[in-house]
Amino acid sequence: MSVLIVGSTALDSIKTPKAENPRLLGGSASHAGVAASFFGPVRLVGAVGDDFPKRYVQLYERLGIDLEGLQRLPGKTFHWSGEYELNMNNRRTLATELGVFETFNPTLPAAYQTTPFVLLANIAPALQGHVLDQMRRPRFVAADTMDLWLNVALPDLLKLVKRLDAFVLNDGEAHQLTGADNLFDALKKIHGLGPKYVIIKQGSHGSILSGPRGMFLCPAYPLPKVVDPTGAGDSFVGGMMGYLAAAKGSIDDHIRRAMAYGSVVASFCCEGFGVQRTAKITRAQIDGRLKELERLARF
Amino acid sequence: MSVLIVGSTALDSIKTPKAENPRLLGGSASHAGVAASFFGPVRLVGAVGDDFPKRYVQLYERLGIDLEGLQRLPGKTFHWSGEYELNMNNRRTLATELGVFETFNPTLPAAYQTTPFVLLANIAPALQGHVLDQMRRPRFVAADTMDLWLNVALPDLLKLVKRLDAFVLNDGEAHQLTGADNLFDALKKIHGLGPKYVIIKQGSHGSILSGPRGMFLCPAYPLPKVVDPTGAGDSFVGGMMGYLAAAKGSIDDHIRRAMAYGSVVASFCCEGFGVQRTAKITRAQIDGRLKELERLARF
Repeated sequence: MSVLIVGSTALDSIKTPKAENPRLLGGSASHAGVAASFFGPVRLVGAVGDDFPKRYVQLYERLGIDLEGLQRLPGKTFHWSGEYELNMNNRRTLATELGVFETFNPTLPAAYQTTPFVLLANIAPALQGHVLDQMRRPRFVAADTMDLWLNVALPDLLKLVKRLDAFVLNDGEAHQLTGADNLFDALKKIHGLGPKYVIIKQGSHGSILSGPRGMFLCPAYPLPKVVDPTGAGDSFVGGMMGYLAAAKGSIDDHIRRAMAYGSVVASFCCEGFGVQRTAKITRAQIDGRLKELERLARF
Repeated sequence: MSVLIVGSTALDSIKTPKAENPRLLGGSASHAGVAASFFGPVRLVGAVGDDFPKRYVQLYERLGIDLEGLQRLPGKTFHWSGEYELNMNNRRTLATELGVFETFNPTLPAAYQTTPFVLLANIAPALQGHVLDQMRRPRFVAADTMDLWLNVALPDLLKLVKRLDAFVLNDGEAHQLTGADNLFDALKKIHGLGPKYVIIKQGSHGSILSGPRGMFLCPAYPLPKVVDPTGAGDSFVGGMMGYLAAAKGSIDDHIRRAMAYGSVVASFCCEGFGVQRTAKITRAQIDGRLKELERLARF
């Protein structure tokens, strides 16, 4: 089945202690879309400006991503620039230029409105909600977010969270949202906001699912070298949703493996700038690393 | 087979935001010894002063711990007091009174010198080395340490590490010892110091093994409530070595499961002050939680 992904489609300029890369293909929808594309059909909803390089459109197309929902608007593409510290865990934003995202208000193509799997990748929660308004009885809706929306759009976010099957956030955001120091308290409070599935991302420590069949501790695939972690979280949810949409049977039967696949795609993402590495992998490489992750975690 | 455990035998006074508990049974050898006792015979090497409460000796005895190597010396028992912050991750030492450990220099009972498994729990590396000097061809030697020894006794520690089969340390210590930001670099450098097995503890994020059969990502058993994390790392290595000593066959066949068992015993340790919870568990409870950990990690 198809997965519809809405989120930011951006140009990222990323500095690390070792390199500087201007105007990479970035944004939550780009990373999630590339990640999901290895598992089945992806429909992308986003907006780019008239400065958006043609090679990035070609990259989406090469991966079979449906671009009917990608709006080309007059103006500049959303541009984010950031800098990582040596340990690759701390980053700071140098500049954010919203560009066409300042006025973006997506109207979904008719064909998109019945997509069974919906990933509301990180973007303003009002926009995520607006996309969800246009969907007709989706089978499974997941959303990711970021600390910015907790700070500036909490009421919108809380309204959205009620309508989700799965809410994905990182541990800092879970703490900020609930005030809970303990993981169990945080999970309980977030379930209380609506979602049946809560997924807490913990970066290189993996992720945790809380759902109808209890908890799942999903390991991260360990990497000898992290080149650029930007988009790892988006790749994780993208890979997860891509796998889930392609799997037959119940969500509960597949969500753990889907997270493990997400974890694997996220590991590839970290090995290159932007989507440079992710866009070049094959399903066979993904499956190989998944098997390795199983071996790494078996006892 | 038996496991010999040398380390500190102490009284711990522990403050948390919720409670204050003076003069609990503590010390690395106590925690590790209690943890190992659920799997097979334990021989304890340490020293206590004449203020050491009789009920703690009885507790060791009730768990079947052999105390021939526990010296009763004139003077005070090693006393540590510390305080935890609300999130239970950060602690600060309020006072350390070495007492009888100032002059402690263990001479092993003859019967102890042929013990096949040796755990050099956290204590001055010179003392760990002195104990090892007295052992006759042990089958497997593991040592734990702490940041203090990296700061004040690094040459002794490096001398010791050469002689180990397994070296256990936490991620902060691994970084301090090697200067490496990346886990893989740190592991490589630590293997270069001698040990065939390197185990990096990551607290509530679990632990990582690097050995002849590659890496193993050992999950931590997630806890709804942490009462007192003191001794969790000691319980981890104690449980691991206890299980290993009891298992038949090669180290490589059992070390992953041994770590998972250590992780489970450490989780019980965190649920009470000192060894209050650990000393009361049963092997059946440990096995139950191990099964649960398997379910939590399966995908």
